[in-house]
Amino acid sequence: MSAEAGRVRLSLGDIVVRLGGEVVGDAETAVSQVASLERAERCHITFFSNAKLLKQLQGTKAGAVIVGPADRDATALPRIVSTNPYAYFARVSMLLNPQAPVSPGIHSTAVVETSAQVSDSASIGPLAYIGHGARIGEGTRIDSGCHIGDGVEIGVDCRLYPNVTMNAGCVVGNRAIIHSGAVIGSDGFGFASQDGAWVKIPQIGRVLIGDDVEIGANTTVDRGAMDDTVIGNGVKLDNQIQIAHNVHVGDHTAMAGCVGVAGSARIGQHCTVGGGARILGHLELADDVQISAGTLITKSIRSSGQYTSGMPFSLHRDWLRNAAYLRKLEEMAEKIRRLEEKLNASERTQP
Amino acid sequence: MSAEAGRVRLSLGDIVVRLGGEVVGDAETAVSQVASLERAERCHITFFSNAKLLKQLQGTKAGAVIVGPADRDATALPRIVSTNPYAYFARVSMLLNPQAPVSPGIHSTAVVETSAQVSDSASIGPLAYIGHGARIGEGTRIDSGCHIGDGVEIGVDCRLYPNVTMNAGCVVGNRAIIHSGAVIGSDGFGFASQDGAWVKIPQIGRVLIGDDVEIGANTTVDRGAMDDTVIGNGVKLDNQIQIAHNVHVGDHTAMAGCVGVAGSARIGQHCTVGGGARILGHLELADDVQISAGTLITKSIRSSGQYTSGMPFSLHRDWLRNAAYLRKLEEMAEKIRRLEEKLNASERTQP
Amino acid sequence: MSAEAGRVRLSLGDIVVRLGGEVVGDAETAVSQVASLERAERCHITFFSNAKLLKQLQGTKAGAVIVGPADRDATALPRIVSTNPYAYFARVSMLLNPQAPVSPGIHSTAVVETSAQVSDSASIGPLAYIGHGARIGEGTRIDSGCHIGDGVEIGVDCRLYPNVTMNAGCVVGNRAIIHSGAVIGSDGFGFASQDGAWVKIPQIGRVLIGDDVEIGANTTVDRGAMDDTVIGNGVKLDNQIQIAHNVHVGDHTAMAGCVGVAGSARIGQHCTVGGGARILGHLELADDVQISAGTLITKSIRSSGQYTSGMPFSLHRDWLRNAAYLRKLEEMAEKIRRLEEKLNASERTQP
Repeated sequence: MSAEAGRVRLSLGDIVVRLGGEVVGDAETAVSQVASLERAERCHITFFSNAKLLKQLQGTKAGAVIVGPADRDATALPRIVSTNPYAYFARVSMLLNPQAPVSPGIHSTAVVETSAQVSDSASIGPLAYIGHGARIGEGTRIDSGCHIGDGVEIGVDCRLYPNVTMNAGCVVGNRAIIHSGAVIGSDGFGFASQDGAWVKIPQIGRVLIGDDVEIGANTTVDRGAMDDTVIGNGVKLDNQIQIAHNVHVGDHTAMAGCVGVAGSARIGQHCTVGGGARILGHLELADDVQISAGTLITKSIRSSGQYTSGMPFSLHRDWLRNAAYLRKLEEMAEKIRRLEEKLNASERTQP
Repeated sequence: MSAEAGRVRLSLGDIVVRLGGEVVGDAETAVSQVASLERAERCHITFFSNAKLLKQLQGTKAGAVIVGPADRDATALPRIVSTNPYAYFARVSMLLNPQAPVSPGIHSTAVVETSAQVSDSASIGPLAYIGHGARIGEGTRIDSGCHIGDGVEIGVDCRLYPNVTMNAGCVVGNRAIIHSGAVIGSDGFGFASQDGAWVKIPQIGRVLIGDDVEIGANTTVDRGAMDDTVIGNGVKLDNQIQIAHNVHVGDHTAMAGCVGVAGSARIGQHCTVGGGARILGHLELADDVQISAGTLITKSIRSSGQYTSGMPFSLHRDWLRNAAYLRKLEEMAEKIRRLEEKLNASERTQP
Repeated sequence: MSAEAGRVRLSLGDIVVRLGGEVVGDAETAVSQVASLERAERCHITFFSNAKLLKQLQGTKAGAVIVGPADRDATALPRIVSTNPYAYFARVSMLLNPQAPVSPGIHSTAVVETSAQVSDSASIGPLAYIGHGARIGEGTRIDSGCHIGDGVEIGVDCRLYPNVTMNAGCVVGNRAIIHSGAVIGSDGFGFASQDGAWVKIPQIGRVLIGDDVEIGANTTVDRGAMDDTVIGNGVKLDNQIQIAHNVHVGDHTAMAGCVGVAGSARIGQHCTVGGGARILGHLELADDVQISAGTLITKSIRSSGQYTSGMPFSLHRDWLRNAAYLRKLEEMAEKIRRLEEKLNASERTQP
C-alpha cells in the first residue's frame, strides 16, 4: 500500500451506491481520506463502534462518520449507517486509497526463463527472477528482487513485494499478498540421528497456499517433508512467523507477529494466534480457538475457546523474591497436606 | 530440494548394494519414491521404527519397508533390515531424490568482481553478487540474488539458496546448505553508553562456519565483536534463529526454529534446543544438553540432561483466576510457615 | 564493518589529541588494533572498567590500557585515563577500524528511476533499485540488492547493507545503519472481521526513522495504519525484531534480538528491552524502563525501573513434577485459608 493516497474524493452518496448502507444527513458531503476519531479533519471520514470512545465521537472534527444501527443518532454529523462499521470503514479506505494499477510487462533487467509462462497483464519488476516452468497469473505483480523458483504457480491479482523468495514447486492461489523478505518453500527441518551426526531427510513436499492469503514480512513457510504444507483460504500471517513442514493452517485463521508453529501441527479454521505464541509439533487445534500472546501450546486443543499461559511480570526485585518459590510448589503442597492431616488428627483426638 | 522427484527407480537389491543392509523377500521389488506408512502406495518405500505405529505397518500399501532387526518379521512385505531404519530411509530418499546437478558457470546477469576466485565447477546464479577477493569452491551453487561480500570464503559442494547475504570476511566450510534470507556476518549488537546515548563498538570479528552445516531461512548469525563467532561442524540451525556475536555452537548441535542465543554464549556439542528457546549471554552449556521448546535459560548448565521452563497453558478464564496467585507465592509460603509454627506450638502445649 | 582492519597505527599521544583523556606512561606507545584483556598482545590497546577482571588486567599482554580515574594506578602499562573507559575504547576502535570510504557513483547494474535524486557523493551498489522520486543524501551508501521504494527519503552518511527493503514513502534521518534483510514499511497487520472472513484495512501511514538509528538484520518495521510508525533518534534495534504499525519508540531506546512490539505501543526514551521480550499493543512504557529478556509485558508501565517475568528453568523431570501445581495455586491458597480458619477457631475454643 502506497503512502501516497487521498487523491480520490467521494460523496457519502457515491459511497453507499458502491458499498451499501444508508446515509443520514447531507449525502453530498465529500471525503478524501480516512482517519481516526481523534485525528480526523473536515476532509476525513471516520468510524465509531466502541462505546468507550463516545467522548471522542462527540469531539471529532471529521466530515463524516460510519456508525452502527444502534448509534444512528449518536452524532449529528453526516453519517453512514452500516451493520459492521469497522469492515465498512475498511472498504471505504480501499476506495479512497486504491492500489496503483499494475503496469503490465517485464522489466528489462528481470530474468525470465523461456519456459516460464507470464500473463500479458502481469508485471515483473526490476532485477526479479522467474524460473523454468513457473506460471504467473493475470494482473499479478512481482516486485523488484523477487525470486520465483522453477515450477512455481501464482494465481491472478497477487502482489509480491520486493525481495520475496518462492522456492521451486510451490503454489499460490489468487489475490495473495506476500510481503518483503518472506520465504516460501525453504526446506523443513528434518534429520535422522546416526552415530552422533545428523542425516538430512530430503524435503520433497511443496507449500500450497489458498486464495486471499496475506503473508507478512520475513515470515517463513517450509515445504513439506513428504506431503505438502498447506495454508488455507483467507489465512492472514503477520511478520516474522515460522510455519514448519507439513503444518496445515485452516481457512481464515489469523496469526500475529513472531508466532512459531512446529512441524505437522494442524490448526483449525477461524483461529487467532497472538504475537509470539508457540505451537508444538504434531498437535491439533480445533476451529475457533484463540491463543493469547506469548502462550506456549504443548497439547492438542479439542474445544474452541481462549487459551493462555505466561507469567505475570513484576518489578524485578519482587520477581526475584517470588520466583524462588516457583520451583518449590510441590514442597509447598506437601506442607499443606501435612498440616491438614495434623489438624484433622487433632480434631479427632479432641473431645 | 526440488518438489519434482521420483524419476529414479531402484530395486531393493540396488539399494543394499549402495547403502548396505539386508533384503528380506523379493530383492527385485522396485520403488521410485519414499512415503509415510499411511500415505505409501505400491511404488513407495517406507520405514517402521516406532512400535506405536504397528497398526499402520500392518495396513500399509507400500511396496517395501525398512525395518530394524527386531522387526524383521513384523511385516510380510519385501523389506530391508537396517540397524537404524530412519537414517537408512533418509539415505534411500537421497538416492531417489537426487539434487539437480550443478550447472557450472556464471550467469550473465551476475556481478563478479575481478579479484574473486570462482571455481570452474561452481555455479553463480542470476543477479547474484560476488565481492572482491571472495573465493567460491568446487561444485558450490550460489543461487539468484545472493550477496557474497568481499573476502568471503565458501568451501566445496555448498548450496546457497536465493537471496542469502554473506557479509565481508566470513568463512563457510564444505557441504554447507544455507537457506533463503539468511544473513551471515551482520554486525553484533555492541554499544557503550555515554551521556544518555549509545556509542557503537565496531564489530571486527568474523563468522566461521564448519563443514556439513545447514542454516535455515531468515536465520541471522552476527560477526564477532573482536574475536569470531563460531558454528561447529555438523551444526543444524532451523529458520528464524538469531545467533549473536561471539557465540560458539559446538559440533552437531541442532536448534529448532525461532531460537535466540545472546552474545558470547558457548553451547556444547550434540545439544538440541527446542523451538523458541532463549539462551542468555555469556552462559555455558555442557555437551549433550537438551533444552525444551520455549524455555528461557538464565544460568550456565554444567551437566547433560533435559531442561525446561514454561507455564502450562489453561483456558483463559482459569488462567486469570490462577495467575493472580503467581505473584503471591512468597506470601503463601509465609502463611504455611506460620501455620506450622502455630500447630507445633499448640502440640507442645497440649497434654 | 569490514573484518579486515588494523592497518592504522596510532600512538597514545595521537589518540588523546583526537579523543581527549590523559596519557600515563610512554605516550609514544603505538597500537594498531583493539582486543580484550585476555586476548590482547603487544600491538593492542584494551580497556579495564570491571573490578572483577583485575586478575586479567594484571596478566594482560596488551601494549596499552584504557582505565578510569580510580584505576589510574591499577596497572604499570602505558595507559589512557578516561571517565568512561568503555565508550573511549569504542572511539579508539573507530579510529583503528575506519569504515572504507564511500565510492561515489551508481553501479552500472543498479536500476535508478529517472525521477530519483541521488547525491553525487552517494554510492548505489550492484543490482540495487531506487524508486521514483526517492532521495538519497550525501555520503550515503546503498549496498547490492537493496530496494528503495518510491518516494523514500534517506539522509546523509547512512549505510544500508545488502538486501535491505525500504517500501514506498518511508523516511530515514542521518547516519542510519540498516542491516541486511531488514524490511522497513511493510503493511501493518490490520483487518476487520466480516462474515467469518478478514477485510484488509489499507495501511496508509509511513515509517519515520530519526537520526543515528541502527536497525538489525531481518528486523521488520511496519508502516502505520493511518498515522505513522515512529523510531526516535539514537534508537538501536538488534536483529529479528518486529515493530508493528503505529508503534512509537522513544529516543535512545535499545532493544536486543527477537523482541516483538505489538501495534500502537508507545515505548519511552532511554529504555532497554532484553532479547525475546514481548510488548503487547496499545501499552505505554515510561522513560528509563528496563525489560528483562523473555519478559511478556501485558500492561502499561508508568514508572522507570526493571521489570521481569519468566519461569525459572529446571531439570525436565523436576519441572514436570512441579508444573502440575502451577495450575493449582488457587486451590492451594484456598486450602491455606481453611487451615487458618480452623486453627483460629480451635484457638478461640480452647481455654
